[in-house]
Amino acid sequence: MSNFEINELKKLLGPEKVLTEVEDLYVYGYDSSIIYSGTPWAVVRAYSTEDVAKILKFADEHSIPVIPRGGGSSLTGGPVPLDGGIILDLRPMNKVKVNVDDGVVEAEAGATIDEVDKECRKYGFMFPIDPASSEVATVGGTLANDGGGMRGARYGTMRNALLSTEVVLPGGKVLNLGSPVYKQALGYELAQLIAGSEGTLGVITKAVFKIVPLPEKLGRILAFFNDVEDAARAIFTIRRRGLNPLVLEFLDDITLQAVDKVYKLGLPQAAAAVLADVDGPSESIERLINTFKKIFVEHNSFKVDVATDPKEMDRIYVARKGAYPALSRLYPVVIIGDICVPISKLPKMVRAVKDISKKYDIPIAAVGHAGDGNLHTFTGLHTTSGDEWERGYEANDELSLIAVELGGSASAEHGIGMQKKKLLERELILRSGDEVIKIMKEIKRIFDPKGIMNPGKLFD
Amino acid sequence: MSNFEINELKKLLGPEKVLTEVEDLYVYGYDSSIIYSGTPWAVVRAYSTEDVAKILKFADEHSIPVIPRGGGSSLTGGPVPLDGGIILDLRPMNKVKVNVDDGVVEAEAGATIDEVDKECRKYGFMFPIDPASSEVATVGGTLANDGGGMRGARYGTMRNALLSTEVVLPGGKVLNLGSPVYKQALGYELAQLIAGSEGTLGVITKAVFKIVPLPEKLGRILAFFNDVEDAARAIFTIRRRGLNPLVLEFLDDITLQAVDKVYKLGLPQAAAAVLADVDGPSESIERLINTFKKIFVEHNSFKVDVATDPKEMDRIYVARKGAYPALSRLYPVVIIGDICVPISKLPKMVRAVKDISKKYDIPIAAVGHAGDGNLHTFTGLHTTSGDEWERGYEANDELSLIAVELGGSASAEHGIGMQKKKLLERELILRSGDEVIKIMKEIKRIFDPKGIMNPGKLFD
Repeated sequence: MSNFEINELKKLLGPEKVLTEVEDLYVYGYDSSIIYSGTPWAVVRAYSTEDVAKILKFADEHSIPVIPRGGGSSLTGGPVPLDGGIILDLRPMNKVKVNVDDGVVEAEAGATIDEVDKECRKYGFMFPIDPASSEVATVGGTLANDGGGMRGARYGTMRNALLSTEVVLPGGKVLNLGSPVYKQALGYELAQLIAGSEGTLGVITKAVFKIVPLPEKLGRILAFFNDVEDAARAIFTIRRRGLNPLVLEFLDDITLQAVDKVYKLGLPQAAAAVLADVDGPSESIERLINTFKKIFVEHNSFKVDVATDPKEMDRIYVARKGAYPALSRLYPVVIIGDICVPISKLPKMVRAVKDISKKYDIPIAAVGHAGDGNLHTFTGLHTTSGDEWERGYEANDELSLIAVELGGSASAEHGIGMQKKKLLERELILRSGDEVIKIMKEIKRIFDPKGIMNPGKLFD
Repeated sequence: MSNFEINELKKLLGPEKVLTEVEDLYVYGYDSSIIYSGTPWAVVRAYSTEDVAKILKFADEHSIPVIPRGGGSSLTGGPVPLDGGIILDLRPMNKVKVNVDDGVVEAEAGATIDEVDKECRKYGFMFPIDPASSEVATVGGTLANDGGGMRGARYGTMRNALLSTEVVLPGGKVLNLGSPVYKQALGYELAQLIAGSEGTLGVITKAVFKIVPLPEKLGRILAFFNDVEDAARAIFTIRRRGLNPLVLEFLDDITLQAVDKVYKLGLPQAAAAVLADVDGPSESIERLINTFKKIFVEHNSFKVDVATDPKEMDRIYVARKGAYPALSRLYPVVIIGDICVPISKLPKMVRAVKDISKKYDIPIAAVGHAGDGNLHTFTGLHTTSGDEWERGYEANDELSLIAVELGGSASAEHGIGMQKKKLLERELILRSGDEVIKIMKEIKRIFDPKGIMNPGKLFD
């Protein structure tokens, strides 16, 4: 990108929206994986859909790559500029408008999930999706990666709440996909196609989602186990009996020790723990909690903590919500896995994590939204090169393969980004030969014929 | 299609799978709309994915249109052979396998929704989607049209339950799209793209869906009103207060009279009724039912029937489930609308139905899944030609426009088929100009370059 082009961009948008200082280019070159980095040619901060349209017209004319970016909480290198280009920072677009009469919220791409959820709660509702990174993860980024989170076992991922979205295509055309009503037939579901496309088809500028009522009464349970498989079996039993908790999370020993150390929670020594949020009408909550307690005890839980008081519930929640920050403090480099297996295969999967950890002699923590079969593994390393890095990388790869062999997927809710391109390709070929990747690349060409949108992500 | 080609087809599949008698061609020329019809060149009954692959290879080589067909319960002309071609009858493919340990059901395209639901119930679960036509509607057809139904306010439409699907493309390639786990990131969401594509991209042969637990306790409420808007306001209030019933349905006076006449239910004279299924833990069900009763009375309901006994619940349900059959007996020709509006606009929409009925001097009933803003209108006619037909057609068109003006959509869960091509085009252009239709046609070309898949549906 020439100085002339940078000046053009400044004239087009106003100079204050275009950052080119070396410090800016540096901080915008990373995401939260830390592993991946690059240096953009410029950073542009978008304040409106018109700004985005202008940038995409300019970039398309000049064949300059555009990398949309929200909170930068991606763990797979999604918003990292692989080979220069313009980082399109959408955070200034952060308006949120709840329309409680219609049961929907409209949010701009740069609003964080917490900001959206906070607005919903003013009306007795909540945003159904709740990623662990909700404080920084934005609507645009979370939708582009089809993120899920704590309430995934009940409410799925972003696409399940999505009703309509505004998207800007290369060249600057603004599309309104879907319709802001609860049910719609509008031909091919392009809004669903954009969800999870990781900024490779166009830029999400705003979206409308369903909102859901707050639980009448909530109870939180944290059960500790001496055997990882017992914990996984308890999760399986809960689902098998048709119980449908709002949150159902798994934490292994490494995770428990890490959060205990960082947040001083006074947790007991355990091989694993399960966190469940049980909700229901007030007359029933005690019986519901007891049903869960009984299942945990039947699966050899040696300690079951229960809280219904909001403060005590918050304290318990730290064990899960703090898992990633706590683990990140222990190891300078973490390879984060995001596998999903059929729920009955959870015991096998958590056992495999421990076995692979031993085999490669590398600490691997397992924590995650096990209620929907989704486990995050944290392979802890000290370096991104040499033998340790290679062992870590291979261990993570083998775990992904095991998940696929168990009938699952190597990627659930963190997107593909740069990290899982090879894994995605392998999995797609395993399922359908090379036809599906071919179709995806042809779809990409329809939306982005010059290939300027977030190049090098999803597939090569 | 020449006799030579028909003989080729018989050799390829076995003669017993290929029907060419004039009676067969006649009955396969209609769907449940009755309005649309055509004559296929042949009917082929598929017993396996291999059969489907063979047919799609043959049809692609010979450039013969293929129209996939399930139960034929489409109301929009979806499976009608517009201009000859092969009707591909998928009903012989009707295997259903519940994997309760993983919380999923795998069903072949030809299984009816009732057959799938029945299997789920053996394990204490149910299929989340429940179209009024569940007795005949098949998995393939309902998924291809992204059908919803009675439990849509809670569980949405087919796409919300979909995890993975097997699809055969023109030429015979078999793709496995998505993954049979609760969460997945597999690049562009092609399984979601197939859902709602109405057989225009390929043939759905099987699919895996999430299943949901049966309610612990269920209560059914039927409330009668003297004013349609009161009924609509009650529905709005229920949603606004964050109540989330399993079923929330609206029935107007014409519908109530029709079901009362046909099923002899002894219903009172009323301008409208609301049917709600309330579910929850057993200790809470009475209070929950009373909350609903109170809301209905506050909105001037003059009679509220409540049932918790299964037999009595079934009796009440007839009023809703029998609506379409009953209305169809009153009028030889019915134009069925399928509009969806923002929930707060329901009172305006039901009022508009009554006003348009007067304006065009044609009876129009309104009934439907109002809990998610979806209303079905039944424009009752005696003929498909002349002035009466034109008035009916225009009345239906004007109602669709009003729905769009109120911020909604002209189509919700019945698909586009032949009936709503013009309405779809108008709505898409209104939202985004002609770009979206252009993109859809290019996507169609990727999957079906020769245009043999269900031609003339969705768009021209």
